[in-house]
Amino acid sequence: LAIEDIHRFRDEFLDMHPYDQSELFEELNETERHLVYSYLSPEEMADVIEHIDKDRVGDVITEMNPTYAAEVLAEVATDDAVDILNDLDKDKVASYLTIMEEEAADEIKDLLHYEEKTAGSIMTTEFVVVTTEMNVKQAMRHLRQEAPDAETIYYIYVVDQDRKLVGVISLRDLIIADGAEIIEDLMSDRIVSVSVGDDQEQIAQMMRDYDFLALPVVDFQHHLLGIITVDDIMDVMEEEANDDYSKLAGVDVDAAELTSIQAAKNRLPWLIILMFLGLFTASIIGRFEATLDQVALLAIFLPLIAGMAGNTGTQALAVAVRGIATGEFQKQGLSKIVMRELTTGVIIGVTCGLSIWGIIYIWQGTLFLGFVVGLSIMTTLLVATVSGALVPLLMHYFKVDPAVASGPFITTINDIISVVIYFGLATMFMQFLI
Amino acid sequence: LAIEDIHRFRDEFLDMHPYDQSELFEELNETERHLVYSYLSPEEMADVIEHIDKDRVGDVITEMNPTYAAEVLAEVATDDAVDILNDLDKDKVASYLTIMEEEAADEIKDLLHYEEKTAGSIMTTEFVVVTTEMNVKQAMRHLRQEAPDAETIYYIYVVDQDRKLVGVISLRDLIIADGAEIIEDLMSDRIVSVSVGDDQEQIAQMMRDYDFLALPVVDFQHHLLGIITVDDIMDVMEEEANDDYSKLAGVDVDAAELTSIQAAKNRLPWLIILMFLGLFTASIIGRFEATLDQVALLAIFLPLIAGMAGNTGTQALAVAVRGIATGEFQKQGLSKIVMRELTTGVIIGVTCGLSIWGIIYIWQGTLFLGFVVGLSIMTTLLVATVSGALVPLLMHYFKVDPAVASGPFITTINDIISVVIYFGLATMFMQFLI
Repeated sequence: LAIEDIHRFRDEFLDMHPYDQSELFEELNETERHLVYSYLSPEEMADVIEHIDKDRVGDVITEMNPTYAAEVLAEVATDDAVDILNDLDKDKVASYLTIMEEEAADEIKDLLHYEEKTAGSIMTTEFVVVTTEMNVKQAMRHLRQEAPDAETIYYIYVVDQDRKLVGVISLRDLIIADGAEIIEDLMSDRIVSVSVGDDQEQIAQMMRDYDFLALPVVDFQHHLLGIITVDDIMDVMEEEANDDYSKLAGVDVDAAELTSIQAAKNRLPWLIILMFLGLFTASIIGRFEATLDQVALLAIFLPLIAGMAGNTGTQALAVAVRGIATGEFQKQGLSKIVMRELTTGVIIGVTCGLSIWGIIYIWQGTLFLGFVVGLSIMTTLLVATVSGALVPLLMHYFKVDPAVASGPFITTINDIISVVIYFGLATMFMQFLI
Repeated sequence: LAIEDIHRFRDEFLDMHPYDQSELFEELNETERHLVYSYLSPEEMADVIEHIDKDRVGDVITEMNPTYAAEVLAEVATDDAVDILNDLDKDKVASYLTIMEEEAADEIKDLLHYEEKTAGSIMTTEFVVVTTEMNVKQAMRHLRQEAPDAETIYYIYVVDQDRKLVGVISLRDLIIADGAEIIEDLMSDRIVSVSVGDDQEQIAQMMRDYDFLALPVVDFQHHLLGIITVDDIMDVMEEEANDDYSKLAGVDVDAAELTSIQAAKNRLPWLIILMFLGLFTASIIGRFEATLDQVALLAIFLPLIAGMAGNTGTQALAVAVRGIATGEFQKQGLSKIVMRELTTGVIIGVTCGLSIWGIIYIWQGTLFLGFVVGLSIMTTLLVATVSGALVPLLMHYFKVDPAVASGPFITTINDIISVVIYFGLATMFMQFLI
């Protein structure tokens, strides 16, 4: 009976797409998962592992019997194996690599060196290579042999004797071609490749622009080291988009928030930092207590001014962050961008400042309160626009990766600046206000 | 000499990748562009057009001689042609379709019906289809014929006599297989397909999860209508990511901001709406003028409370928007999510509220001011958390596509709520504050 059950499970499970297998697997409890390990070969389990959630896959590997885990890791695509191992303890990694058969272990070790988020860390070494002097028939025969293991067979890379990349040919062109034709005559030598240290976001942009399914990765002497396939790039795009979004929102939107404890843990750190920045703002306003005591009416425009400064700064920040990510800003040059943001800030500031002045004059009938609020808006929006754009630009220029939460940070800084400007102006013009 | 120039231009230009061609083309002035139209065949120009910036391609088509434009549009991949035509005036579209050869025009007309952002609007009809009874050799021969025009040849779809989708086979499996084998025995009948009305974001998520290079699009009777390829999905991912990001920032980050006039035009609309919301906040605070006059010190915590409420709301909003986009929230059910956000709001509110109370007591020495600020923070953070999550959830539930700028909108609404709570509590406890 038990053996029949195993057969039935294997029949149904292996008939599903690996992604569906992984979805089902993630819903099992520990006992059931251990049964699955005993039912599936390491090769079959590797397909499941490749589709399991990144945050959970480390735990899954760790709970397996180490020999089985090592065999599974050897069967997983090299780039995925490296991703998994990068999140595990170093001694665990060492023990898996020792148990693993040498060839697979060596391939993984080669990739473990590369810095995170570079071409090297997302490339795979399972690609198909032919040499210039082969003919189409030989190349096709070679391709058929390599097909089961290769990550993609739709681009075939051509190398010379030194393993330097000299050309590329698509499978589409290969199957249309005559069997006797020589690869060198067929291949395209207009190769678009990336360097092993290139940033993953830049590579994603390139793949999207050129509509490639894979890109070759080379070292500085143009030796072919690996390839990056489009499915990995889709993950990169999702990761980078989540990253930008998280920074603007001041919360990691990709973190598991299944319980309210997890959610609070995810959100509280930045809230507490911002709380202290808010207390700092409060202490600055406190210094203007005398001004406030004289004209309590000043307080009613405080959220308006701080809110406008925050929103304007966030807009400028968002435009700059995307401009940098798409490479649009690099094309234009720093001085041109700063000049443009300055002029934009003036236009926005003057428009909003004058409107507010007019509205407050009509509403409250006091010319000078409107003047102080209008002038404050004008100045703060100018400062907020320029600072919102400059902060990410300077960070990019000095190659500092901005920490999480640049959005609320810029907002809070602009809060403080706006408060100082507002109460500063109010104190200056106090004689006209009372 | 002129003819030599043309030859030299063609040699160099056509040797570039279409994306590089388009980059170069976009830097030309009108006279130069017209020269390019006269040098390149419609087919060659189609490659350039497919890579030109979406915002500019309409102008480029319009400035061409209409017959040439129609020929170019006929050569462009059908889905791209539809994208271009969707942005043009209806009478222009009609005239291009009239000039165009009938077959191409019919294909485009079929796709023009589909609603934007659905599978139908991004699919292409240039795919390769074989029937179940063909053998591998026949299928390969058919494939070689279709290859030059097909958008992808790496998945071959299998249909029955009624053109219903019954299977799929990858080119990888096809080239490994023996020539005499029958397609029906080789194909996988575990087909993952999408419906023609499915949302593009959902499809992108699917393609990323399953690592497909293409997905078949079917109608409700499972007739094969078209395919969606991974390069189009990468554009969708970029578009959706920009869209979410723009909404959070309150500015279209994908709009051309090459001049400060363009930048101001892009940013001012939402700033002006938010200005009026800010004035509304001001008028609410104005109602508490008596309270403010009595305890001017209340004003110094105004930016802190409003800022914290805004940030908390934005966090909850961002988590909910991403949860909806990835499908994570749909799995969990509305009541579970609302309960979790409620508890999270309580945890966050109590933590921050108690901290603030303690800090203000130590700092200012007044127990009751701290109590009012702390209680306000506690209540507003709870409200902000729940409202931040509920607004996108309800919008999704009622299938309302949130307008641009949900981020600043939520922030400003929470500003108003926080001000009412703060001054309401202060007025209630006034006897203890003075």
